[in-house]
Order: sequence, then C-alpha cells, then structure tokens
Amino acid sequence: MELEVINTGTELLLGQVTNTHVGYFGEKLLDLGLRINRQITVPDGEIIKEILAEAISRADIILVTGGLGPTSDDLTRELSAELLELELIEDEGVMGAIRLRFEEAGVAMPAANRRQAMVPEGAEVLVNNNGTAPGLYLTAGIADCRTHIFLLPGPPRELYPIFQQFVVPRLEAIIAAKGASVPVCRNYFFMGLGESELASRVECALGNIAGQFELGFCLKGGGVIVRCICKEGEITALDTAIKSVSPEDYVAEGEFAVEVNLVKCLRIAGESVATAESCTGGLIANRITNVPGSSRVFDVGYVTYADQVKQELLGVPRDMLEDFGAVSEPVAKAMAEGCLERSGAHHAISLTGIAGPDGGSEGKPVGVVWIGLASRGYDVHARHYRFKTDRLNFKERASGKAIDLLRRRVSGYF
Amino acid sequence: MELEVINTGTELLLGQVTNTHVGYFGEKLLDLGLRINRQITVPDGEIIKEILAEAISRADIILVTGGLGPTSDDLTRELSAELLELELIEDEGVMGAIRLRFEEAGVAMPAANRRQAMVPEGAEVLVNNNGTAPGLYLTAGIADCRTHIFLLPGPPRELYPIFQQFVVPRLEAIIAAKGASVPVCRNYFFMGLGESELASRVECALGNIAGQFELGFCLKGGGVIVRCICKEGEITALDTAIKSVSPEDYVAEGEFAVEVNLVKCLRIAGESVATAESCTGGLIANRITNVPGSSRVFDVGYVTYADQVKQELLGVPRDMLEDFGAVSEPVAKAMAEGCLERSGAHHAISLTGIAGPDGGSEGKPVGVVWIGLASRGYDVHARHYRFKTDRLNFKERASGKAIDLLRRRVSGYF
Repeated sequence: MELEVINTGTELLLGQVTNTHVGYFGEKLLDLGLRINRQITVPDGEIIKEILAEAISRADIILVTGGLGPTSDDLTRELSAELLELELIEDEGVMGAIRLRFEEAGVAMPAANRRQAMVPEGAEVLVNNNGTAPGLYLTAGIADCRTHIFLLPGPPRELYPIFQQFVVPRLEAIIAAKGASVPVCRNYFFMGLGESELASRVECALGNIAGQFELGFCLKGGGVIVRCICKEGEITALDTAIKSVSPEDYVAEGEFAVEVNLVKCLRIAGESVATAESCTGGLIANRITNVPGSSRVFDVGYVTYADQVKQELLGVPRDMLEDFGAVSEPVAKAMAEGCLERSGAHHAISLTGIAGPDGGSEGKPVGVVWIGLASRGYDVHARHYRFKTDRLNFKERASGKAIDLLRRRVSGYF
Repeated sequence: MELEVINTGTELLLGQVTNTHVGYFGEKLLDLGLRINRQITVPDGEIIKEILAEAISRADIILVTGGLGPTSDDLTRELSAELLELELIEDEGVMGAIRLRFEEAGVAMPAANRRQAMVPEGAEVLVNNNGTAPGLYLTAGIADCRTHIFLLPGPPRELYPIFQQFVVPRLEAIIAAKGASVPVCRNYFFMGLGESELASRVECALGNIAGQFELGFCLKGGGVIVRCICKEGEITALDTAIKSVSPEDYVAEGEFAVEVNLVKCLRIAGESVATAESCTGGLIANRITNVPGSSRVFDVGYVTYADQVKQELLGVPRDMLEDFGAVSEPVAKAMAEGCLERSGAHHAISLTGIAGPDGGSEGKPVGVVWIGLASRGYDVHARHYRFKTDRLNFKERASGKAIDLLRRRVSGYF
C-alpha cells in the first residue's frame, strides 16, 4: 500500500515549529504494518492543491495535517474541496460543538471559527474533543483505485486522539480489505555502549539466525536504539539474541526514556529515590515525575543551585566547598549522603557540574560533571564524566547518565 | 528562486529520529532571503533518484541530507551520480582525510569507509571536519536553467558546520547573481491571548498600514507566535503596531521560551526567584536554569512531591493539608510564602495540582492546578487553572503559566 504524508504549514519551514508528526505517524503506522513511502512539507498556500493532486495520483492512503484552523492562512479544507470539486456544507453537529466549546470557556465565539464547521460533501467528520476543527475523511477516485484521504488538525494534542480513535480503525479496515500481512517491529534501547560497538555485537549475534529481517541503528535519548523489523514467527529468536548482547546495557524495548525503566525497577523493588541537583537544575526530578506512578517512589527533590544552599539544605561542609570547589568528588558524595539522610529515601542521586557556556576553568572545563549515588547498605559512590556539548544537551546527557547509574544499582549490576 | 529540501533516511519515517534539518535550514535560509518551497522525506532506496529527478525539473536550489555514510543503506552519492550520468572518482584528498581521522582515533579504517572518498566527476568537495563523508556540491543543466545541488551529511554536528562554512557563501553568490532582495522576518511571541482573538486584533491594528507583508499565526510554547515577513523599510511601523496590540501579553520577539524573558526581567530588576513545585516535579526550576546566567537570579528550588515534605520543607501546616487537601488555594499560598521565607528570594512561585492520568476526583479532576506567587512587598497571590491534557503537556502548560505570571509581576503589570 502506498502511503504518503503531507504536512502543511509555513511555520514548519521557517524553524519555528519542529515537525513531530512524521515521527508520530511513522511509529503508529508501523504497528499496523504500514510504512510511509514519502513525506512532504509545504507552506500554506495554493501549492497544497498541487501537492495533494500529485499524491492522489500515486498513493492509496494520504494523511494531511494542518491548515484547518480559523485564521486566514488556514486553507487545507477549502483547497481540498476545490481540488475534488466538492461543495462545502455547514455541518450542524460541528457548529454546535464549536459553539459549546466557546461557551464552556466563557468566551464569545469569534466569527472566524464558523469556517471550521464547513464539511466537504460526502466527507466523514472525525470529532475533535481537544480543539475546534474536526478531522475529515474523504475518498477520491472509485472502487479499487480509490485514494483514502485524511485531513487532520496540526496541533499534536488535537491530532493524536483523533488519530488513535478514528484514523487507526479506518486504516485497519482498509488493510483488512487488502489482505496484507503485518510485520513485527521491535526497538531495543541500550545505554552505555557506543553505536559502532553495539552494531558490531548485534550483527555478530544475529549472524547465525536464518530468515529475512531488517536491522537499523540510531542514537537517541543518550543511548542507542537497535531496530529490528521481521515476520511474526521470527521475532522470538531475534529478541533473545539481541537482548543478550549486553544485558546490563539493555534498558527496555519500545521505550527510550530511561527514567521509565528506573521507576518500574524501583516500584518492583519497593524502593524510593530522592534527588539533589545543582547543574541539572531540576531536570532529573522532572524526568522521574514525568512517569505516571512515580509518586510511589519519589517524595522530594532538592535543587541546590547555589553553594550556600548546598550547605543549608544538604549539610555539605563549607570547608569542603572552599577546599575542593562545588564541582568535585567530595562534594558530589556529600550532597548524595546529605540528601539520603534528610529524605529518608532508599537511594539518593546527586549532580554537580558545569553546564556552560560560561563557568569553565583550567582544571574544570565546561561539560565536566560529578554524579553521586548513595544507597542504604552501600558505600557512597561517585563517577566523573565530560559532556562537550551545549547547555541543554549537557543537562539531558548528565541527567540520563545519573538515572541510568541508579537503574544499574537497583537492577543489581553493581 | 525555487528551493527544495530532500531529507533521506528510513529512520526519519519510523518515529525514531525527529527531522530537525528542516527547522534549521528554514531559519538559516530566511536570513539569506530564501524560502523553502517544498520539503520531502524519503526512505533509503532507489526512490531517492526519482525524487531528485522531479526536484531538478522544478527547483533552482536543492539541499539533500543523509545517505553519505559507509553502510549498505547509504545510497545518496551513488544514486545522484547515476542520475546525472557522472562517473565516481576516488578523491585523494578526501581519502587521505578519512585515513587520518581513523589514525587519530587509534582505530583501523574499515574497508566500507572507502566509498566515502568517491566524488562525482565535476563535483566540489565540501570538507567535513566532524565526520568522514564530505559534503558535495554539483550542478545539473546549463547556464540560467542550472540547478544547484548540495549533498550533505545527516548528523547535525557534521551538517551545521559544513552548511555555515561552505553552503551559505555559495548560496549568497547564487542570490547575488540573480539580484534578489532580502525580506525581513520577525516572530512576536504572546502568552495569555487565544489565537483567534490575537489574530483578529493584529489584523485590525495592521489594517491601516500600507505595503506588502505576510502574516502568520501558530501555537507554540503555551502561547501564540505572530509571524511577520516584509520588506526592510516596512518593519518599523509593523513592529510598533504588533507589539502594542496587547503589551502585557507580549513576551518577546524571536524567543518562544517565556523563561528566557523572565530571567532577563529579573536580572534587569536585580531580583531573584525560588520555586516550590509539587505536580510540575522540578520542571519550572529546570526551565529557569536552562537559561544561561540564571544563577544570578535563582539559588534554590524545592520539589515537594509528597504532602509530608510540603510540611517539613516549606512549613505548610498539617491541619491545612488535611482540611483543604494539597491541591487548594490555601496550600498553594502557604507553599509560596514558606518558600519565600526560607529561600530569602524576592519572589517565590508554587504549584500544586493533578497532572494525571490518575489522581482526579469529583471536585478536583485531572488537570486542575493552583499557582501561588509570593513577592516581597505584595500580598500573596494564587490563581486557579484547568489544563485538560496529558501528563507531560499538563506539566509544560502549568509551568509556562506560572513563569508567565511571575513575568507579569516583575514587569509591573500587577
């Protein structure tokens, strides 16, 4: 099945908004056994008609995003109707829903939003509970040569629910009618091994396994994803082989945020963690609390950004800060121990480093970080890293490393 | 000038890697007065040839990324040469540079990397100091109908320096030869007004201004971006008109993270902020400390995730928590006041709410949040919001709202 994605919106081509639709669709569609054959981004304008016409001549399924809003640069609805020579008719149900949304918000409905109730003749309305414009499903052509076209809102929080609730079932029906088989895709997330080394070990481990499968490697989330696409019956052998390539570096399948696995491990162990962050400024606590259910394993986080606060809140001795500096092994350990003691948690992670771009010096350049780990029943532990990168990337890498370190402790690897 | 971008790579269509190239190019090209007319993503494979041929028939300039690596799925170099009927010749300079890179890393050069020294006849090599594959610049067609084609590495850390150092000067030469003028683009970021309402006010304010300009509106960062592209001489009048549409809701031009403006305002005022977060779990502290120089305005953040910790660290009375619950106006105020007192800061922000998906109840559904604000010399203040969205989006919206509230306080709007 030929499937294409058209993302409309000038903001996507000007650096203001990153196109996350493709990644979202790519992942969800693969679960259905569909691949994106081509993705095109176009600015708001007449070009949408041209691109859509071209796509209809090639594809069986087209997903279009954007241009369903109420402002003058939102043209997808009108241009699609024009192209397919369909009349636009005001849909009572949609109009009512839009009015209700504004009523509930206690705001008068702007006249501009009326356009959003216009539906091309014959199109199916896909209800949007998170915005004003509904999605629209229509077909071009006839019988077996039909092209299925989905016009969908741009904002992710409106798009995703419509996709899950309405687009997926319709795609499943289209696929079932065609009788295609569904390949299996697994994504194995590792942390702690370089891409080349891991690829080399995986290719070696899989060398003896017969069958057609596709392997891919890419960097993500401070680690490496090993992607494996194969037939249903082959996955078990491949799964076992890939996971055993390096058990302590293997984090999870299908999940690329190491904190999800950490919270899961802590919940299983019935243990808790507290955080004491300097340079990461709250990012570790934020990542942990992003995980639903983290309240079972996390009670408190300290963001001790200034040295004075490291003393006051965590009991780091003033002499130690003066003698060694905040970014040092003794201070990282003292922060972790102070945090463990005051929080009552089973484990405490601490971080102290230099995020940049300023703050570096001769012996302690930008990117240096000490990660401390204190666990009840263990000696306090600290490790040193250097992440030569920009401020935001430094915070991501350092926090990920710290979370992974605790994952290994809770999993019993050290 | 017709400019198109082709991004190659199956990983871009499978949800593993987000395409950040488009945003990067979009922003940099606009500075040169160039717009991306179309962007296409294709998987690794023969389709690259087809897409490139189509693009050559339309465009003056084509930027292609990806597929220059050493592995079997890297095909851009070979397919481009095939399409343009150019012989591939091993370039001594490139071969030497690749060998040297491996020598310096103390690793033997894999045979696969030899392919990366093959250069299509007549192409110009664009040196890559951050990877093995050089960029390649070639032209198709003749004289005024020539298409300028740039083949560039996929990884951003290799792409960006090559783009800045080699592609930009060549694009400038192409533009100069054509005699085109450079438009000005401004992005005005507002928070606190809905998109329709803001668009309506902006269109009204600009109604009396003569001249050709392009307006666009899109949602981002919890607010709305008003994009204006116009001629150099027209920007001043438009700038004044747009900013005065709603001064207190106007945050900044060209910056869509409200915390950047907050830190700037605090630095100018010589004031500081401390944070006391429950449901946002450290995100506000993280956002503030993302801003370089935030150490001048931020010393400490408390992540008081459990009720017990709200008592211990911030002095919230136990009775109050029992009588009103953690998610309530009195608790939000007590958290802010306790934080202000203990931190010694000029301002303290507090948040207590229900991020979901669990934790909601009859009177306090998921998405409810109380934001508290305590400032020296002011009565403590609290506001109530409801963000009906998923956990991560809730944290983003709630933290953004809190940061914006403080921005308004520091800017003197209330």
